[in-house]
Amino acid sequence: MNFSDFFPIWSKLTSAQQQLLEHSAVFRKAEKGDVVHNGSIQCTGLLLVGRGQFRAYFLSEDGREITLYRLFERDICLFSAACMISSIQFDIIVEAEKEAEYWVIPPEVYKDLMAESAPISNYTNELMASRFSDVMWLMEQVLWKSFDKRLARFLLDEAVLEASLTLKITHEEIGNHLGNPREVVTRMLRYFQTEEMVKLNRGTIEITNPEKLEAILD
Amino acid sequence: MNFSDFFPIWSKLTSAQQQLLEHSAVFRKAEKGDVVHNGSIQCTGLLLVGRGQFRAYFLSEDGREITLYRLFERDICLFSAACMISSIQFDIIVEAEKEAEYWVIPPEVYKDLMAESAPISNYTNELMASRFSDVMWLMEQVLWKSFDKRLARFLLDEAVLEASLTLKITHEEIGNHLGNPREVVTRMLRYFQTEEMVKLNRGTIEITNPEKLEAILD
Repeated sequence: MNFSDFFPIWSKLTSAQQQLLEHSAVFRKAEKGDVVHNGSIQCTGLLLVGRGQFRAYFLSEDGREITLYRLFERDICLFSAACMISSIQFDIIVEAEKEAEYWVIPPEVYKDLMAESAPISNYTNELMASRFSDVMWLMEQVLWKSFDKRLARFLLDEAVLEASLTLKITHEEIGNHLGNPREVVTRMLRYFQTEEMVKLNRGTIEITNPEKLEAILD
Repeated sequence: MNFSDFFPIWSKLTSAQQQLLEHSAVFRKAEKGDVVHNGSIQCTGLLLVGRGQFRAYFLSEDGREITLYRLFERDICLFSAACMISSIQFDIIVEAEKEAEYWVIPPEVYKDLMAESAPISNYTNELMASRFSDVMWLMEQVLWKSFDKRLARFLLDEAVLEASLTLKITHEEIGNHLGNPREVVTRMLRYFQTEEMVKLNRGTIEITNPEKLEAILD
């Protein structure tokens, strides 16, 4: 994978800037479940995802979670380098959901590049705007979509990501994605089971009628 | 008011860039209630608030509102120029809450300045990050704070903004700020009245016991 795959503005950089990005990047591997960035205790740097899948989530003061967005191959995580931009006043945590390979660009390197290069800075603007749009969508869901629709959407999306109708996920984990307590998830899943849309087993949720589940979204 | 008051990075601009900003800015006045930007139909430009107060809110597809942030003297509204940054995939509406004076910088002018000036682009990054932080705070409130706390917080904040314990605001308007239906607001206000924290009159809400209202926040 080339760094130009991550930066559509690559050709607008000087060769010194290109080399700085390439040489400062540290290659890393993560196992499923590894926390690769914890915003409340560190400023890791820009994460460039080479392979695998990450989950970026927000943690409330009292320990509640909600998934903000997922990161896949060729995605960049900006908020793992929040110290670069002083107005970012919130922390996120990034966790590998699948075995992954990624690069880390140190925040001080990237900050200097933003300061000297308008193309880099404008591209960073686009990255932030894209995440902002994700979060606005999420806000709309949380505010105005009923929980049955949000849960149905989540199960169907997971089935696509995992390429399987049998999901290995706990009710607690789903609650952490959606920002709701486990009990609320369990109650709705049992209702889905009564309606014969899913089958609950020990440690797995099987989507038995995806069409019926999709009909909830309308 | 000088433009340098809006742009802390003013001294890093060339005099040609400074003049371009000053000469392209259009001065405008707004009356209370005027919609000065409607994201779904226009790309107004950057708003620089000289005097008064604005409310930036998000409108769902089915017409529900929630206030994202307020704009006061010396604030800049970036999302009224969303067309400048292609990854911004949501619309906001900006409405004057008090008689106001402001400047509009055309989006094409500002976009060109971002493209050529790293300081302008980085400052824009800071503006966006600051609003992003507001929205993350709001998300946390909406997800995990109970409605009594959110309403108490809103009434106390309004009393400060209006410098009065008697608020001229309808239950519907409060619902539009907080993203909840009017009935939910009315029910909670009646509970607050029963608890002798507020007194509801025709068209006004009087905060009769601010200390007790504040105690709800704990």
